[in-house]
Amino acid sequence: MTAYPLDHTHDTNAYGWPTGAEDPQTDFPIQNLPFCSFAVGMEPFRLGVGIGRMIFDITAAEQAGFFPEGLEAELAACRSGRLNAFMALGPASWRRMRHALFELLSLATLGQKRTDMATTCLFPMAAARFDVPVTIGDYTDFYASIDHATNVGAMFRPDNPLLPNYKWVPIGYHGRASSVAVADQVRRPHGQTKRPDDAEPSYGPCRQLDWELELGFFVGTGNAPGHPIAIGAAHQHLFGATLLNDWSARDMQAWEYQPLGPFLAKSFLTTLSPWVVTMDALAPFRVPARPRADGDPAPLPYLSDADDQSAGGFGIDVTVELRSTQMREKGEEFDTIATTDFSHMYWTAAQMLAHHASNGCDMRSGDLFGSGTISTPDPSAVGSLLELTKRGQAPITLSSGETRSFLVDGDEVRMTGRAVREGYRAIGFGAARSIVVG
Amino acid sequence: MTAYPLDHTHDTNAYGWPTGAEDPQTDFPIQNLPFCSFAVGMEPFRLGVGIGRMIFDITAAEQAGFFPEGLEAELAACRSGRLNAFMALGPASWRRMRHALFELLSLATLGQKRTDMATTCLFPMAAARFDVPVTIGDYTDFYASIDHATNVGAMFRPDNPLLPNYKWVPIGYHGRASSVAVADQVRRPHGQTKRPDDAEPSYGPCRQLDWELELGFFVGTGNAPGHPIAIGAAHQHLFGATLLNDWSARDMQAWEYQPLGPFLAKSFLTTLSPWVVTMDALAPFRVPARPRADGDPAPLPYLSDADDQSAGGFGIDVTVELRSTQMREKGEEFDTIATTDFSHMYWTAAQMLAHHASNGCDMRSGDLFGSGTISTPDPSAVGSLLELTKRGQAPITLSSGETRSFLVDGDEVRMTGRAVREGYRAIGFGAARSIVVG
Repeated sequence: MTAYPLDHTHDTNAYGWPTGAEDPQTDFPIQNLPFCSFAVGMEPFRLGVGIGRMIFDITAAEQAGFFPEGLEAELAACRSGRLNAFMALGPASWRRMRHALFELLSLATLGQKRTDMATTCLFPMAAARFDVPVTIGDYTDFYASIDHATNVGAMFRPDNPLLPNYKWVPIGYHGRASSVAVADQVRRPHGQTKRPDDAEPSYGPCRQLDWELELGFFVGTGNAPGHPIAIGAAHQHLFGATLLNDWSARDMQAWEYQPLGPFLAKSFLTTLSPWVVTMDALAPFRVPARPRADGDPAPLPYLSDADDQSAGGFGIDVTVELRSTQMREKGEEFDTIATTDFSHMYWTAAQMLAHHASNGCDMRSGDLFGSGTISTPDPSAVGSLLELTKRGQAPITLSSGETRSFLVDGDEVRMTGRAVREGYRAIGFGAARSIVVG
Repeated sequence: MTAYPLDHTHDTNAYGWPTGAEDPQTDFPIQNLPFCSFAVGMEPFRLGVGIGRMIFDITAAEQAGFFPEGLEAELAACRSGRLNAFMALGPASWRRMRHALFELLSLATLGQKRTDMATTCLFPMAAARFDVPVTIGDYTDFYASIDHATNVGAMFRPDNPLLPNYKWVPIGYHGRASSVAVADQVRRPHGQTKRPDDAEPSYGPCRQLDWELELGFFVGTGNAPGHPIAIGAAHQHLFGATLLNDWSARDMQAWEYQPLGPFLAKSFLTTLSPWVVTMDALAPFRVPARPRADGDPAPLPYLSDADDQSAGGFGIDVTVELRSTQMREKGEEFDTIATTDFSHMYWTAAQMLAHHASNGCDMRSGDLFGSGTISTPDPSAVGSLLELTKRGQAPITLSSGETRSFLVDGDEVRMTGRAVREGYRAIGFGAARSIVVG
């Protein structure tokens, strides 16, 4: 997919020393340092980390000699402009790089180099183009929110919303890697649909375009071919997380999905935030996994681990905002449509990965899996229009007075996420943001 | 996946001039020239074409100056040892290369160079290791045999075997690209299963391991991002075909597949033949698409093309053979378990590709799609044990007297395929062959 110029910054004013990292509203304080692949002008894409409203160019900093010795392998792995080779080096390397970046970017240690670095290595996010920072070998999408599965199941099987396997199996399916992108446009797909009153299906523009709000997790290191990943080790295989919008053509999905699952209803585009927030940055925001309800089965041993149970969830608030053409033309801001919380997920990221590899499936550095739509028990805190509007039966009303059952052309969808914990500096994910075009 | 040494030759005797291409039984006469990626000893994988029982090394021939001028771009694209860059050059380049190879390998034109070429460019298949000759970006599996869909549907929904969308939609799902391999072993996967009498599911070795006999098609050139591929142009986007064994863990599949489709029941391994037979080589074997039965709907316009209707099928006989440990230890040959015929497929390869891209999904050079299990209206000419044994209820008996409901460890499965037409030299696909290990 083509990369497009985006404005992913929230703080458009300048704060403090050039990066703006001290702004309490920034997604990108020194505690975060998420990775991106960015380009300025016609130059090739290269790897950077976000700091305030700036991008710190890793390869430029290497060339300028700012990094200490001992990071040769890590810096060499970063030169391709994609994270795969760096990911493959493993957690010790990830941590070594993180600590070096802390040192370099901490005001206290910069001393005389500060001006040099600002000149040679810091680029404003607003002036950069972004691309997916990883060559994604395979993309998988899970279905880890029991509330989402129940909400959707109730629409199709009112008497039997949750299938018997749900509480045993982290349900997932293979997705399309080629259409995962950082993209500022989503083209309304064409496809086969058949409405209840139609005598026959027809091919044409999707009439029920929807988003799905998810987190995506990048596999850092894979497994030995043919061998599972133990649940207790799964977390260490994860490199980081991003925001993921699993665009969904609901009318196409309803007609095509049996018996083999979603296909063209999903494969036209999956939008990511340009930023990969590392698992190390997310460590302070780990929370207990969602407790099983009374009567729910315990996970089978290959999915069961005490540490994962006590700290396998993440306290991450995720938000979907919408702005119509009319709102944009009047200079109005986005409406917040839904705010939800990742800590409600039924299955943890480690359980998803351990399950994925439990048959020996080859996992590779750079593989991506989505969590599935992030919904909660609260009907207003759900991750799709399908759920918010009861499959279009209960349209929502925007601040402009317009209503929406599903998305119309010109609608702009922005997803953001922040990890928040009392006593800790909040960190964020930037935005996954696209406009619907016809 | 690791590549393993394989013996894919059928003719182990030497025939005629060194290649054995004149052997009437060979899969690889001069009319075929399928591509492979092969290695000898510890050398890197490189591209070759099959001729008789030999491999013609394209890059060695380039270095020795055997190719005529005008093929610079094609030969440069072949140096990586994978076909993707060559595929991306498009049909005119594929044809230019094919004609040059014809010239080089035709006995009549070899003259004085024959001895040189045999010394520097021809390697016996029996001494080579093979790998998938393409870096597969995305792998998709279709379900294009209406007989297979009906047979399987009848097991799960006796009253309603064929779902209402089948005759309108070329049903398919995303598969796992990382586990597509040329592999001489298939490791019995572990996974969650729940038998009807089990109170709870458990995790352990698959008890219902099965094959699925398919053809795989490689996309040669992709689409403009976001744009469909017209049905009339779809055939020109296809580079070639291979044999594909879609290994299936039936007990895992039955428990996991709802509501999002097959996942871990398939993603442990997909075995390919090492050979990609080009669409140009298959051109003489094109046959009319399977006629629609009375009352069946005509394909929607985006799937309808007169040329595809008259010549979108392929007359390819495909065979599954099985040999148990006992048979192998006694030096016995394989039993032929099923012979089926690709011309019975309900959807053509061009329809599958046009449908796949109909939502704008990014198709890339090197993408692979499977046809789905190749079954026919004849209950003995079907492409899976599931169908042959009626889901294990009617075991088959081998020549050794052993019976099989599903595969046991040590079973060796070999799939072969030949395109046959009166008045034409038959061509073949080599073999997709793996042994089950526990």
